[in-house]
Amino acid sequence: MLKLESCLTAGSLLYTNRSGADTHDRLRIEQSTGVREGVHMIRVAILTVSDSCSRGERDDLSGRIIEEILPEDRFQVCARRIVPDDQDAIARELVDFADVAGVDVVLTTGGTGLGPRDVTPEATGAVCDRIVPGISETMRAQGLAKTPYAILSRGTAGIRNNTLVINLPGSPKGVRECLEIVLKVVPHAVDMMRGGGH
Amino acid sequence: MLKLESCLTAGSLLYTNRSGADTHDRLRIEQSTGVREGVHMIRVAILTVSDSCSRGERDDLSGRIIEEILPEDRFQVCARRIVPDDQDAIARELVDFADVAGVDVVLTTGGTGLGPRDVTPEATGAVCDRIVPGISETMRAQGLAKTPYAILSRGTAGIRNNTLVINLPGSPKGVRECLEIVLKVVPHAVDMMRGGGH
Amino acid sequence: MLKLESCLTAGSLLYTNRSGADTHDRLRIEQSTGVREGVHMIRVAILTVSDSCSRGERDDLSGRIIEEILPEDRFQVCARRIVPDDQDAIARELVDFADVAGVDVVLTTGGTGLGPRDVTPEATGAVCDRIVPGISETMRAQGLAKTPYAILSRGTAGIRNNTLVINLPGSPKGVRECLEIVLKVVPHAVDMMRGGGH
Repeated sequence: MLKLESCLTAGSLLYTNRSGADTHDRLRIEQSTGVREGVHMIRVAILTVSDSCSRGERDDLSGRIIEEILPEDRFQVCARRIVPDDQDAIARELVDFADVAGVDVVLTTGGTGLGPRDVTPEATGAVCDRIVPGISETMRAQGLAKTPYAILSRGTAGIRNNTLVINLPGSPKGVRECLEIVLKVVPHAVDMMRGGGH
Repeated sequence: MLKLESCLTAGSLLYTNRSGADTHDRLRIEQSTGVREGVHMIRVAILTVSDSCSRGERDDLSGRIIEEILPEDRFQVCARRIVPDDQDAIARELVDFADVAGVDVVLTTGGTGLGPRDVTPEATGAVCDRIVPGISETMRAQGLAKTPYAILSRGTAGIRNNTLVINLPGSPKGVRECLEIVLKVVPHAVDMMRGGGH
Repeated sequence: MLKLESCLTAGSLLYTNRSGADTHDRLRIEQSTGVREGVHMIRVAILTVSDSCSRGERDDLSGRIIEEILPEDRFQVCARRIVPDDQDAIARELVDFADVAGVDVVLTTGGTGLGPRDVTPEATGAVCDRIVPGISETMRAQGLAKTPYAILSRGTAGIRNNTLVINLPGSPKGVRECLEIVLKVVPHAVDMMRGGGH
């Protein structure tokens, strides 16, 4: 699913393999209006956290899957970046997405396991003002029906300013499964963050 | 269900729309003995967190529902207050209920969503010494059977001194559903807090 | 099930009823090689948190059950200690197990309730760098099928350096039930901590 309007096409997206916004990526963010045919779109940034992807040694398959699965009638992917498993680098991107780009949702993939370099939840917790524990609880509880290892995913979710950050697992399979939950609740979540639903 | 003994009747309860204890409310707390017909009652304070209720623009329906549902043979509602969605105001009431009134349980309603002013879990976490994560986890997990949005409730529960604070959702429907869980475990929880059950 | 190789026999284990490592216990840790018949074993320390057990007034039944249930073809119990319900004492043992003994997993039992002295989760959270919320969430969710009180267990799990700390309940029944979950995921968790599974 390509997001054509108000965005650069996915094909012209230059993946940024370093910390910090790339020119193309920045342009894509600026050009995303958040509105399509009068409908208020949900502006999304995708952050892949992976040492090997950031070094270009592996394709960012999970980041691509997220972009493909998000329905283009509700979601507008404004940015996609890759950072290594470094807490400061992750936190810097999250802050940039929330404070500068002002996207509605950041979906991270990777870095939620128990490996020595897995620190995505810590970076997320450090920059968020408020935690939304139920999203990650549900991903684990529902993942458990498929594999007991789902409970080892340490992902969290939280709000910084008006941006919702959700950690997804790193594996393509895990990403697919967890996105179902995201799709069910994120539109309402964004509506609440904007002051609606009361 | 009116709590008649050792309490003012619900009818005479003057709701406090500002931060701080009202004279009637204070009297009600002082007169609650925590004992009825020789049975050790669970002394409860209800805190409604709502901007519109605190301004008198809306009835405190959820607070009333909590009071009505709690069985009067186990629970004694000693105080009911309303505060705006302000972290300091909420925290001040929780501290007052725990440290001065010394109630067994504070049930809050409201302020657990993702709205810009929803900060009840943050106020609760800030004043509690120990967190009791399972109560809120279960409310979300069981709520999920009825609506996927249940997982967006950010409520928490914790202990300050010997007082158990539990965040309930703001909606009357959410409150009713979550109180079932509270009723099942809170008597045992209070017994444990008092040093029993070992 | 006795762990005979590379360990003192369970029979010769001198339980330490004070904070700090006992000579026999220290020896047991030093002699545990973490390898048996070429297989990389998971080195485990068991920490019983209980005032009455630490005073010798009660048998450490739950600690013994943990040791008996862990299959000896995967797990090597290197140490078993008893401390009172004191946050500093618990934290000191966890740090010693993680930083000095360098065991793979510490299983604690006790101190996860709502009693005034129950502080095992606080001690665990204070010494761990990263939290693994799903293990405790799952223990509570699965325990709920047997008793509603399972949701009152405040246990947590986390990682300090390369050691995974998991809080189990204090009751023998709770320990047995929760160990099933531990057995299903801990080998993979340890593999991830060691840098595998990527």
